Amino acid sequence: MSNNVLSLDSVPLHTQLRDVLRARILDGEYPQGSQMPSESELGALFRVSRITVRQALGDLQKEGLIFKIHGKGTFVAKPKTFQNVSTLQGLAESMTGRGFEVINRLHSLRFVAADKRVAERLGLAEGDTVAQVKRVRLINREPVSLEITYLPKALGERLEKADLVTRDIFLILENDCGLTLGHADLAIDAVLADTELTQALEVEPGSPIMRIERLTHDASGQPLDFEYLYYRGDAFQYRLRIDRQKGTQA
Amino acid sequence: MSNNVLSLDSVPLHTQLRDVLRARILDGEYPQGSQMPSESELGALFRVSRITVRQALGDLQKEGLIFKIHGKGTFVAKPKTFQNVSTLQGLAESMTGRGFEVINRLHSLRFVAADKRVAERLGLAEGDTVAQVKRVRLINREPVSLEITYLPKALGERLEKADLVTRDIFLILENDCGLTLGHADLAIDAVLADTELTQALEVEPGSPIMRIERLTHDASGQPLDFEYLYYRGDAFQYRLRIDRQKGTQA
Repeated sequence: MSNNVLSLDSVPLHTQLRDVLRARILDGEYPQGSQMPSESELGALFRVSRITVRQALGDLQKEGLIFKIHGKGTFVAKPKTFQNVSTLQGLAESMTGRGFEVINRLHSLRFVAADKRVAERLGLAEGDTVAQVKRVRLINREPVSLEITYLPKALGERLEKADLVTRDIFLILENDCGLTLGHADLAIDAVLADTELTQALEVEPGSPIMRIERLTHDASGQPLDFEYLYYRGDAFQYRLRIDRQKGTQA
Repeated sequence: MSNNVLSLDSVPLHTQLRDVLRARILDGEYPQGSQMPSESELGALFRVSRITVRQALGDLQKEGLIFKIHGKGTFVAKPKTFQNVSTLQGLAESMTGRGFEVINRLHSLRFVAADKRVAERLGLAEGDTVAQVKRVRLINREPVSLEITYLPKALGERLEKADLVTRDIFLILENDCGLTLGHADLAIDAVLADTELTQALEVEPGSPIMRIERLTHDASGQPLDFEYLYYRGDAFQYRLRIDRQKGTQA
């Protein structure tokens, strides 16, 4: 182990410093939630310039391992919350069984004209009336995701009478509307927080966001519920298990 | 349809403009790859200030729907490439069947001491020698992902003799090493591009990146291959289908 001595090989100093600091964070030498040494302390410790320290810390911040609080310093990030998405579950259903509290801020429930994409997904005509629900979901009182949900009008009218502050829409559809859910198709990518996400999720503009498009069908394959889910990249992970075998057997 | 007239309701003008422009992009009125009207043209068209136009375009850029080329203007983004991850496949295996060309830039194959996380995942002791492979994967000549792969030393020695420029590591493990792959555990989140990713993926610093941690096991459940996969958020999606029923049957 090289302690605080960086080598003179071809790897840039800031990369070496970043890798050493990352290893210390992952090893628990700098524990989660603790304050990191200051830039000048790190510079003195590793005999590198302030610029090198800043670049290494900037990289670790982009990876989500550390975060800065203005005027207070740099801290090691807390572990991310995760949801296992190997089966289709609502957030509350998935998280409360594991001891997390899920509460929702209902931003709006409106009836709007379906745009082209929403209409295509739900098998409706463009301009047909659909229900749009916007909710911020809080895990242990921290905002974690913004969900924008589109449903056919008749289902939206059922949701108006339901408790959207504590319940998953999936469970309302199943238990209150008597529907049987089947499969969902998901598309996952990464975007940056725009104005709406910055406000809804209480993050900086340009923060990393994991975005999901999810189209949920009933057991007969009829599309029911089309959603955009925006998760804070610094706070949340999807986890799943995938098998190598194709179809029924390898 | 409200044409170019924004309403005076409580929704901010830049949000209304963003939503109108987004609908036009999704409808194909502004086709993929085409140049958007300039900021001043949009301002005149919708009778809003340059600041309002900039905020609306900024939001669409963060969503990945448009991109700017310095000195040339604003363009509608091309559709994202996607990989179906309902079953475990290598990138080339998954994409070439659909008519895409996959080529890899081999950045390095080195033997390094396993850090705590790599050692834990692969069931080794911290400090044991492992192979580390860094590759940038190009789809149709465009860089799409950086993959950092860790394997036990003996497998790494087999990889040294293999064609890492055109082949998936999964297929090398199966066909050259005679292993049978079983399942993989994935964790998915979003981060921002750091120095290494900015260079490897040819994106701006702070661009959105979809990050995957993937631990692949052989058919007996032994961990074989631990990877960090970093995908360009503006260019790539994961797609998968999830079923509602838990376990074998609902």
